[in-house]
Amino acid sequence: MRSGRVRIKDIAAEAGVSVTTVSYILNKTPTQTFSPETVKSVLDAANKLGYVPNMAAKALVSNRSHMIGVVIPQTEQHREVMFSNPFYGDFLSSVEYTARQNGYHILISGTNADQTYIGVARTRGLDGIIILGMYMEQHYDEIKKAGMPVVLVDCYVDGHDFNTVKIDDLQGGYMAAKYLLDKGHRRIAHVTGRLKERGVNQQRMYGWKKALEEAGAAYDRSLLYDGEVSYEYGVILGGRLAESFRESGVTAAFVSADIMALGLYKGLKDGGVSVPGDISVVSFDDTWIAGICDPALTVVRQDVALKGKTAVEAVLGIIDGGITEKREIILPIRIVERGSVIGK
Amino acid sequence: MRSGRVRIKDIAAEAGVSVTTVSYILNKTPTQTFSPETVKSVLDAANKLGYVPNMAAKALVSNRSHMIGVVIPQTEQHREVMFSNPFYGDFLSSVEYTARQNGYHILISGTNADQTYIGVARTRGLDGIIILGMYMEQHYDEIKKAGMPVVLVDCYVDGHDFNTVKIDDLQGGYMAAKYLLDKGHRRIAHVTGRLKERGVNQQRMYGWKKALEEAGAAYDRSLLYDGEVSYEYGVILGGRLAESFRESGVTAAFVSADIMALGLYKGLKDGGVSVPGDISVVSFDDTWIAGICDPALTVVRQDVALKGKTAVEAVLGIIDGGITEKREIILPIRIVERGSVIGK
Repeated sequence: MRSGRVRIKDIAAEAGVSVTTVSYILNKTPTQTFSPETVKSVLDAANKLGYVPNMAAKALVSNRSHMIGVVIPQTEQHREVMFSNPFYGDFLSSVEYTARQNGYHILISGTNADQTYIGVARTRGLDGIIILGMYMEQHYDEIKKAGMPVVLVDCYVDGHDFNTVKIDDLQGGYMAAKYLLDKGHRRIAHVTGRLKERGVNQQRMYGWKKALEEAGAAYDRSLLYDGEVSYEYGVILGGRLAESFRESGVTAAFVSADIMALGLYKGLKDGGVSVPGDISVVSFDDTWIAGICDPALTVVRQDVALKGKTAVEAVLGIIDGGITEKREIILPIRIVERGSVIGK
Repeated sequence: MRSGRVRIKDIAAEAGVSVTTVSYILNKTPTQTFSPETVKSVLDAANKLGYVPNMAAKALVSNRSHMIGVVIPQTEQHREVMFSNPFYGDFLSSVEYTARQNGYHILISGTNADQTYIGVARTRGLDGIIILGMYMEQHYDEIKKAGMPVVLVDCYVDGHDFNTVKIDDLQGGYMAAKYLLDKGHRRIAHVTGRLKERGVNQQRMYGWKKALEEAGAAYDRSLLYDGEVSYEYGVILGGRLAESFRESGVTAAFVSADIMALGLYKGLKDGGVSVPGDISVVSFDDTWIAGICDPALTVVRQDVALKGKTAVEAVLGIIDGGITEKREIILPIRIVERGSVIGK
């Protein structure tokens, strides 16, 4: 949008003052005072030229690190974080962008066994922390006690002790199964990641189960296919679903993540089962990959970019606004119909 | 690897001293002094119990931040970084993991118009910086002068002024086109991102051109389809390729990124052109999405995870080892044959 970086010396020339004076004024150096006219002429010149104050200046004024930590889940300790799932890429892009527009940088980290979220945040002097998909019970007390701005994303905790940003995952699972039931399907499998206590997958599974039970459709453990949220596990579970296809009577599957659905397609195809001819599929998330497969995925859509943006705004609200009451922000979801479901 | 986190109080109990004493000693608090015997008993206890010193303690000892900055490219200023391309996700996963295993955290950032890479690094007290795909001429001098540990990834610069990690992109482009030529194709389109000076796409294009010229195959500007490296641009360029399919005589395409190749599939399919029946495709990178499309992509494979790991090790080598000579690390590439190419 702008043609070049505005330098201190450009502002000095425009305002007709020295470079030092501009520097002092823009950095609000406490030991230096200037006349209101001089301050105004410098600020006007800076404004006219489109100068954006740098982080160092901001930090001097606010005594803050202007860093937010983002803790990303790992499936196992000492393993890589799961960026291969586009959900995390989309989320992180949005977090980084929103933070940057507010003058913040992002420290990302998986955590090893010897590190705690709060320990890292304290060591780093972080102003706040966004934790995505936390499960371990032991951390709740630590975070509660720390009195640090924290926003938990995609985490189900009791009571009003935390600031949270999430969707209604139970409702999402319910919507997916209900959509398939309304299309005439009765034997609906659920393909998902690990069903951890307080995790999103558990909630989505509860929603699926609730819809089946309400409709008087069969629900049994044999309909549940759980593994890890990955393409590879999608392939494996798709293979299992294909293997039991004839005797199971399954005509539809609700899959808890797009990346697993893509794997499921592959596993089903390799097993001679077609989508949607033999099995209809409803996925979850609506990341960019949902539209690229064939047939394109009917999904429960959540706005992952909005989730990232909201998480940053929530943590900045606590940092800047001193918000003290705990807030639970629930973002909307909806069904997006594409080609992976047919009526029965 | 370890069964539980060792706490300060465990060490205190083991050493027979107070928690405060342990804390002071482990954190090397400068205002507190203890007898050598006390220090030894605490350190022995910490060692025996497998205590891992925290980052704060390390920083005190080494006077380092133990943070590495990773600068991620943006297509435009004030836009989101491009994590939707799996290349970046794979790269960043590996960088984060390798850094964490070495006791470092990662600060990620796009850059706005008012920020320079080095400015951010200085403000943040970063120990080193990894810059991915830098193009702007103005930054070279700044980085050269800064005397900060910097590793440039996927960037073609002259001389020996920088530490770089890359592949031989020209050779990669050559391999792709040569592979198609050897299969009997003569009219080979090239689908790519913006051909920036010193960027990887320019090099890959040169390689493609070189192979065509060597083989005496037609090369003209109409065979070059350039846009942005994205799925959407792949669709657009695939549409154009399909439109001119009959008159152009094109029977193969070399695509500079997997994500564009997926889009190309879609654009070609929508235009009634089949892969590989009508047009054979060779892609570049071999991210996880290369294997999921139908037909799976024949690619010039680079090891993206190794690239991330190597970049971190290179920057740590400068930080820890005081390596001063500039090194250019070229990682291997190879063709992986899948189903997207047929002989002609």
